[in-house]
Amino acid sequence: MLKSIKKFLSVSAKSMKRSAIREILKLLQKPGMISFAGGLPAPETFPIDDLKEIVLEVLEKHGAEGLQYGTTEGDPRLRKALVDRHNRQGLKIGMENLIITTGSQQGLDLIARILIDPGDYILCGLPSYLGGLNAFTVYGAKLKGITLDENGMKPDELEDTIIHLKELGKKIKFIYVIPDFQNPAGITLPESRRIRIIDIAEKYDLLIVEDSPYREVRFEGESQRMMCELDTTGRVITLCTFSKILSPGFRVGWVIGNQEILDKIVMAKQTADICTSSFVQKIIARYIEKGLLEKNLKKTIALYSDRRNQMIKCLRKYMPENVKWTEPQGGLFLFVTLPAHADADTIFKKAIEKNVAFVSGSSFFCNDSGHNTMRLNFSFSNPEIIEEGIRRLSAVIREELTGK
Amino acid sequence: MLKSIKKFLSVSAKSMKRSAIREILKLLQKPGMISFAGGLPAPETFPIDDLKEIVLEVLEKHGAEGLQYGTTEGDPRLRKALVDRHNRQGLKIGMENLIITTGSQQGLDLIARILIDPGDYILCGLPSYLGGLNAFTVYGAKLKGITLDENGMKPDELEDTIIHLKELGKKIKFIYVIPDFQNPAGITLPESRRIRIIDIAEKYDLLIVEDSPYREVRFEGESQRMMCELDTTGRVITLCTFSKILSPGFRVGWVIGNQEILDKIVMAKQTADICTSSFVQKIIARYIEKGLLEKNLKKTIALYSDRRNQMIKCLRKYMPENVKWTEPQGGLFLFVTLPAHADADTIFKKAIEKNVAFVSGSSFFCNDSGHNTMRLNFSFSNPEIIEEGIRRLSAVIREELTGK
Repeated sequence: MLKSIKKFLSVSAKSMKRSAIREILKLLQKPGMISFAGGLPAPETFPIDDLKEIVLEVLEKHGAEGLQYGTTEGDPRLRKALVDRHNRQGLKIGMENLIITTGSQQGLDLIARILIDPGDYILCGLPSYLGGLNAFTVYGAKLKGITLDENGMKPDELEDTIIHLKELGKKIKFIYVIPDFQNPAGITLPESRRIRIIDIAEKYDLLIVEDSPYREVRFEGESQRMMCELDTTGRVITLCTFSKILSPGFRVGWVIGNQEILDKIVMAKQTADICTSSFVQKIIARYIEKGLLEKNLKKTIALYSDRRNQMIKCLRKYMPENVKWTEPQGGLFLFVTLPAHADADTIFKKAIEKNVAFVSGSSFFCNDSGHNTMRLNFSFSNPEIIEEGIRRLSAVIREELTGK
Repeated sequence: MLKSIKKFLSVSAKSMKRSAIREILKLLQKPGMISFAGGLPAPETFPIDDLKEIVLEVLEKHGAEGLQYGTTEGDPRLRKALVDRHNRQGLKIGMENLIITTGSQQGLDLIARILIDPGDYILCGLPSYLGGLNAFTVYGAKLKGITLDENGMKPDELEDTIIHLKELGKKIKFIYVIPDFQNPAGITLPESRRIRIIDIAEKYDLLIVEDSPYREVRFEGESQRMMCELDTTGRVITLCTFSKILSPGFRVGWVIGNQEILDKIVMAKQTADICTSSFVQKIIARYIEKGLLEKNLKKTIALYSDRRNQMIKCLRKYMPENVKWTEPQGGLFLFVTLPAHADADTIFKKAIEKNVAFVSGSSFFCNDSGHNTMRLNFSFSNPEIIEEGIRRLSAVIREELTGK
């Protein structure tokens, strides 16, 4: 009889944990719960009627191909639609610079697989997207966090850290950056700082992984050029996704980068899942070709902008005075900072009792700091729910901070 | 300027190669080419009309969920439909014993990820599915091949090999078996031998990975019980897929196993792609619930059985006398053995010139043997094409063997 699987597990598996966030999401099935925890898009943004038409068209005209295996690089029509769209937006790339992945999470996994050996260092923001950090540590990466200010990752600290690690003989593989409406902090890097980070990568011969799921969900302000557009040396690998601009249930993302790197990612993808669903890729290709993505994006931006405004209004109305938050120009999240002595984990347990949820910010800090921070999602809940949720949460925080 | 990506690559990536088969498939776009190379299902088996109805139903009734993130374990309704179906077929499992993966290729990848450390040994058939072997070597596995006879993997050789490797101090993690209509050999393990292999795994405390993509595509003979059904000790992990019984373009498979192992696979899947497409999972769940899978399977079996018969008939008619082949009772492939001195790679190049393709058998042998073997797929081509293809291939082989 098999007594324990422990002796069979790889070193990597022994240290795997369930994602805190994914596990929280399961707790939230409780009726009456208001959740600001997940990164869920609003179902109101899913273009169901347009999709009905397109799905029938795909089955009728392209069923034999759409239900068959596809190439690992991705459906040529979808790749072309994306390349054309990027070119129209000013990023000059060819088909050889873009491949499809099963969500951008797979992009993170495959990049980690082709780049990381155990002990390699990755530099990331403090805080940074947990699913990215976990994808890297599965392959044995060491994470070194760089503080963010109101303009994102601090370049001086980044450079000092690189110098220090190099002095210690450590191997650094890449800098992990989420330049637009960063998850979880909601901060955007201005162009000058993007260029500065690229210059540092060039100076110390590092790669940059630009994780860009939220870029197009901008409510206001000037769109900043992607780091892969600013890069002139082929060292930026960019991850994009349809999860926040169309549907996460399709599981389709794409990677932009230099051909040599994409070539290795394709090899890695062959053993990971052979190809991304041809059926879903054909649906999305048609959706873009018909110009529907731009239409839906406009609607999504309007909806999320209202919800962000509502959340900020309610935070101002209900939160105790010594609580601060970011006011992002786009994306899905804002980040709350409590007074230094507060503990978001304790608040989380009490909040759950009062039927409101968030994610403790410390999950996103690779150096076990940030215990007084929280990530709030504003995309999923409607304005009334947002008000009620922030009211509940503020009451819990007020009680925790002031004892009343 | 980035000179070369080499210095950034992981040890694993440095040894990655493009899959020979996937690359061959790309060469076959040439007009007039007859391909017995891929493992492609016949598009005639794709139930397009039934799917149209179901897809509309999913979008109408479950659009908000179907386009949203799902749980990593898989859509509960699809998991339930599969668990119920297995129970009806005699395999007693609960929901906790089954999870969804992005094709069974992802199952292979995640199993490798949670079990394999560099240098661990995996025992596999000579020959075995290349995509499985590659998924294991990505994680640094050493492969040790076990000869097949007409009943599959030889148990005595398996046991001797285990004893020998253990004496050398090697760590063996699992035995990789494709029990039904093995890819590429087309051989099926009888129940007695399945039990024998399970007993060996129990005796030496090893796991078994049962890769079972073809089991339900049986044309004739008695269905053999799955190894996970025969196993009483929880050491068999079974991989199944919709790729050969519904559509590979959906990229949906499932894994059956003991809960502790599945739990680790789920953790690994969280960083690999978060979840498999909710949209596609909901379509398949509905498809099974409506009883359509059984209907389509019947049609698929009839079609492939005819095509196998046709291919065997043509092989008998056209091939030189000293060429042998397996006559599988199901699946998608048969395996051809040429006289020992023949070289299938040389024949491949000449065959391509004559517009007919196959996969050289040696790709599937982890010990660089099998150079006189070839895998032929019979599922994809219609009977006329099969005749013409075998005629062309036989002419090339005859010329190569006899010089005329």
